[in-house]
Amino acid sequence: MALCLLTFILVTFGLLSSFVSSFDPSPYQDFCIATSDSKAAVFVNGKFCKDPKLATADDFFLAGLNVSGNPLPGLGSFVKLADINSLPGLNTLGISLVRADFAPYGLIPPHTHPRGTEIIVVLEGTLYVGFLAPDTMNPFKTQSFTKILSKGDVFVFPQGLIHFQYNVGHTNATVLGALNSQNAGLIVVASELFGSNPPLLDDVLSKAFQLDKKMVKQLQGLFS
Amino acid sequence: MALCLLTFILVTFGLLSSFVSSFDPSPYQDFCIATSDSKAAVFVNGKFCKDPKLATADDFFLAGLNVSGNPLPGLGSFVKLADINSLPGLNTLGISLVRADFAPYGLIPPHTHPRGTEIIVVLEGTLYVGFLAPDTMNPFKTQSFTKILSKGDVFVFPQGLIHFQYNVGHTNATVLGALNSQNAGLIVVASELFGSNPPLLDDVLSKAFQLDKKMVKQLQGLFS
Amino acid sequence: MALCLLTFILVTFGLLSSFVSSFDPSPYQDFCIATSDSKAAVFVNGKFCKDPKLATADDFFLAGLNVSGNPLPGLGSFVKLADINSLPGLNTLGISLVRADFAPYGLIPPHTHPRGTEIIVVLEGTLYVGFLAPDTMNPFKTQSFTKILSKGDVFVFPQGLIHFQYNVGHTNATVLGALNSQNAGLIVVASELFGSNPPLLDDVLSKAFQLDKKMVKQLQGLFS
Amino acid sequence: MALCLLTFILVTFGLLSSFVSSFDPSPYQDFCIATSDSKAAVFVNGKFCKDPKLATADDFFLAGLNVSGNPLPGLGSFVKLADINSLPGLNTLGISLVRADFAPYGLIPPHTHPRGTEIIVVLEGTLYVGFLAPDTMNPFKTQSFTKILSKGDVFVFPQGLIHFQYNVGHTNATVLGALNSQNAGLIVVASELFGSNPPLLDDVLSKAFQLDKKMVKQLQGLFS
Amino acid sequence: MALCLLTFILVTFGLLSSFVSSFDPSPYQDFCIATSDSKAAVFVNGKFCKDPKLATADDFFLAGLNVSGNPLPGLGSFVKLADINSLPGLNTLGISLVRADFAPYGLIPPHTHPRGTEIIVVLEGTLYVGFLAPDTMNPFKTQSFTKILSKGDVFVFPQGLIHFQYNVGHTNATVLGALNSQNAGLIVVASELFGSNPPLLDDVLSKAFQLDKKMVKQLQGLFS
Amino acid sequence: MALCLLTFILVTFGLLSSFVSSFDPSPYQDFCIATSDSKAAVFVNGKFCKDPKLATADDFFLAGLNVSGNPLPGLGSFVKLADINSLPGLNTLGISLVRADFAPYGLIPPHTHPRGTEIIVVLEGTLYVGFLAPDTMNPFKTQSFTKILSKGDVFVFPQGLIHFQYNVGHTNATVLGALNSQNAGLIVVASELFGSNPPLLDDVLSKAFQLDKKMVKQLQGLFS
Repeated sequence: MALCLLTFILVTFGLLSSFVSSFDPSPYQDFCIATSDSKAAVFVNGKFCKDPKLATADDFFLAGLNVSGNPLPGLGSFVKLADINSLPGLNTLGISLVRADFAPYGLIPPHTHPRGTEIIVVLEGTLYVGFLAPDTMNPFKTQSFTKILSKGDVFVFPQGLIHFQYNVGHTNATVLGALNSQNAGLIVVASELFGSNPPLLDDVLSKAFQLDKKMVKQLQGLFS
Repeated sequence: MALCLLTFILVTFGLLSSFVSSFDPSPYQDFCIATSDSKAAVFVNGKFCKDPKLATADDFFLAGLNVSGNPLPGLGSFVKLADINSLPGLNTLGISLVRADFAPYGLIPPHTHPRGTEIIVVLEGTLYVGFLAPDTMNPFKTQSFTKILSKGDVFVFPQGLIHFQYNVGHTNATVLGALNSQNAGLIVVASELFGSNPPLLDDVLSKAFQLDKKMVKQLQGLFS
Repeated sequence: MALCLLTFILVTFGLLSSFVSSFDPSPYQDFCIATSDSKAAVFVNGKFCKDPKLATADDFFLAGLNVSGNPLPGLGSFVKLADINSLPGLNTLGISLVRADFAPYGLIPPHTHPRGTEIIVVLEGTLYVGFLAPDTMNPFKTQSFTKILSKGDVFVFPQGLIHFQYNVGHTNATVLGALNSQNAGLIVVASELFGSNPPLLDDVLSKAFQLDKKMVKQLQGLFS
Repeated sequence: MALCLLTFILVTFGLLSSFVSSFDPSPYQDFCIATSDSKAAVFVNGKFCKDPKLATADDFFLAGLNVSGNPLPGLGSFVKLADINSLPGLNTLGISLVRADFAPYGLIPPHTHPRGTEIIVVLEGTLYVGFLAPDTMNPFKTQSFTKILSKGDVFVFPQGLIHFQYNVGHTNATVLGALNSQNAGLIVVASELFGSNPPLLDDVLSKAFQLDKKMVKQLQGLFS
Repeated sequence: MALCLLTFILVTFGLLSSFVSSFDPSPYQDFCIATSDSKAAVFVNGKFCKDPKLATADDFFLAGLNVSGNPLPGLGSFVKLADINSLPGLNTLGISLVRADFAPYGLIPPHTHPRGTEIIVVLEGTLYVGFLAPDTMNPFKTQSFTKILSKGDVFVFPQGLIHFQYNVGHTNATVLGALNSQNAGLIVVASELFGSNPPLLDDVLSKAFQLDKKMVKQLQGLFS
Repeated sequence: MALCLLTFILVTFGLLSSFVSSFDPSPYQDFCIATSDSKAAVFVNGKFCKDPKLATADDFFLAGLNVSGNPLPGLGSFVKLADINSLPGLNTLGISLVRADFAPYGLIPPHTHPRGTEIIVVLEGTLYVGFLAPDTMNPFKTQSFTKILSKGDVFVFPQGLIHFQYNVGHTNATVLGALNSQNAGLIVVASELFGSNPPLLDDVLSKAFQLDKKMVKQLQGLFS
């Protein structure tokens, strides 16, 4: 199952790669459609723009957000994005959409978006969702904010906080979300820590999670 | 019909009143839930925050985005918002959601959002949507970017540009959208210009729209 | 006259093409003078910079804001800009100037600036100016904020709101304004909606303005 | 004369006190008119807002920018502002205007605006203006960018750089300027350093300006 | 040891509670010293300001960043902050300092700062530090960026990415760091996930970390 | 001595050339390592990025902040930077570090950072530090905020305000500081005004500093 899970994470979140982002720099013009063919390996903060004379409605368009991929074995969820990588007209405009589908008991595991707040609405199914926040008055405690959501329910995950979505029903579930960045970023906590390349020193993971080193090695094997 | 239209605009967009917003100022803390009861008539840029010790998951939650109100006669559309006014947990977080429903040939008339880009996905039906942008190389021309959208299609309306959505099918249509502001603002062009209180000098409207003054008065009557 | 008006809009606002802008992204250096000759068709958010070693005082200089062009027949106004397109030293610095001249009864028709607040001072003459804002407590109403201005009077048009300036005196008038963007954008409401290319579907304009389709076609003819 | 100069600085720039500002935080609403009477001594970043229901056109209006005060003896210049302190409708909107009048050989001495770029246009007269910038390629050198300006000439002073305006003609001169902040700040270099209260340790000023301590004491007397 | 570790986290990071922050909203004035006594339970985005007439140098001052607390048993590290909570003059100014001390093999466990980039310099000792980033071209992989640092070495942890610091030497170590926020936030991954109150559903943690539920319960016991 | 002083300023602050910066535009991606070899003379706001596939830990690393250069004769201080010019991984991340060393009675002369607030901690020695701010209620007065600092003391210099650091002890002193910009800028008041190339008109300096023209010429000789 571990392999499936890993595969899932790769396949699911590969799509998500620059998923969230909020408070992007403001635009200097009405629009600046992203282009990648700007002569070889130069990069700027964000993307180069297409010649605005060549802009068409299709630059602001993307089809297919009504259909999902197959929920992956292991995690049982699938994610599809309309962000700067799939919708070049979003460049400099600071927003993106996401669709997530869940098989029964499917999970989008705990993660953060470094550059965006996420707001979701449930289209189908029943989900247990939530985020974690340090208690502002007593930093020695973490408070969880969780909720069971049904069709039509809306929930907010504030920027940078760890959050997750889990299908607690025995039917499929679908969520539509938005993030206030063209490229909000995605940090999947468990797979980053245990599956990084090169792997982290096991002392760090052992001490941080209070796991013995054999267990750490085992998890590193599962996630790598 | 004019009365219906007006009623529609009032009812529909009343809800929308501070609809769009992008590139809001960044937050200074993990969250800052809006509160209105801060002792009478003091206002700040944005909203006051609730004591974070009293925060609960319900502050980040809103139900009912799966159901619409009745599309209004006249325009034949209805809009429902999840923004700072209905979802206080959004305060300082720079994003909001919107659901729009259309009867056959229903319209959301041309408007702008001063503080937000909008991205939409069609849940049901067939819509003719678009925005208008001055040609960057030849400012003497306005270019329209329009598209017929079906289920699952995504489209972007860049910040501050005039845009609209029109149901060209003979069935109902539903759209879900997001704006990168907690309060993006809403400027409905026709009803603002012809329905303002006090009314604008008719010379201004007559010259701007190349309409004779009798026609201007008539429109002002319809929209006021 | 329609032709004249159109010509006017083209000629006058062509100059204005990226007229307004506020809250541009901050600079990363003391200055970054715009350059256009960076090898063909690459664009970034904003403009490329000139080599700072080659900067001179002339990059921050523009002559001629004391003289106007001829107020155009039809609208009777003329606009001259000191923005990123005419003053390359403004790049990344977030401000621009504008001079507007009015023949008797000359008009700058209702428009918005998507990226800037405008503040003006009257140098000569008497103008009726104003902007429109949705009522914050009762979004079913639009409030107009208008004022008759004389020499030395200052007025503010908040970012993104529809505003206009109209010479109500029988003498010429001149206004100097500033916008907090190097490229604030310009959306002239009437000419965008009725003069776009390709034209908008007449259903949209007819329903939005409560005009019959014959009238819509006639206006589209006048503005195109 | 020193006394006059000091008086001038106090009188002239007192008005200027928070003169410049650019890249202010974005607004959360269409406008937020500043109010000072919010119950005693509470302050926020910026200003409290007036109840938007009570907004009127006069909140966005200021008269009198066509007339100057008397150019002060000593410096021979006078400055008048339309900023957040005199025009409450500017709150959160990120822009302000300034009018400066110069007697023959009148000076606005070297100063910076910590929160704003300034752009000026000459209405009357002939001025020697400029700013100073560290050479980006060779930081061991400071480059001056200066220019003689006549009527209608426009010049830009980038944010945070030291700049000045000096009337080199034997007639009066008038300048109109704009800054991209509601409150850009004003740092008058000489009077701050030599006139602060309490005075700076003379070692610091002596070493920094390569002046003997007697001279430092003398200047501190003139400016205090 | 688990108890010690937990205690450590509480004690150490309690101090850190709003640790990181970058790209805070810009200031509207020269300074705005934070005050807490603004009449009971009202909060704004950030903090209220002290009356600027009452400002003193001590508002911008904090002593004691040369001494550490006792490295805690369990983790063997201690953190001390100069941020908005201990240094009120930092309000609206967007920066803070941090000092971290490590016993041999002491650890600051993997964490993120939602609102700030961190830059550190080693004052004493030898540390293994690093951060994790999703591979931009192949999101299926996480890349680790780690380094052994000695005295005088500087390292950067980009905003929002998971990072850690571990003393690999058998002597004490000390680090000084800065974050570009007055309140950057702190998300300690392991203790948030396994120690939250109320605890997360064990299904979520079990699936995310590929641990059996007995192990999850055990970890939740250790961290709660 | 003047020559020494000048040399000092050149050598010391040459390194500092774009020293400060706060509230840089936000990043669009996890990181964007600066590169200079992007084909000749093209510049953008900030820096071009390195291909993220080629990123290594060394891009985020800089050695040697534990050692100083020789305090220069004349001023007796030396400054070393970890900013965008020496640490390319800082690009778009909005922070930098600085180390300053002082011989007995060494001075960092009055200066501003146009794009950053600075926060310092004393590592060794005793310093007289401070900044100058216009009195907000009575702009006719400048208030100095000064303090004698010892080991472990922290002090804040708000963005854009004139500040200085002076070693009042008869032993060496060392300070570590941070600025919330990758390139905060540096304006050394005295050397900019009296040492600019080309030199400023002596009338301006004479009137501004109340020095006779002979004295102005003499100072211009010393600083040029």
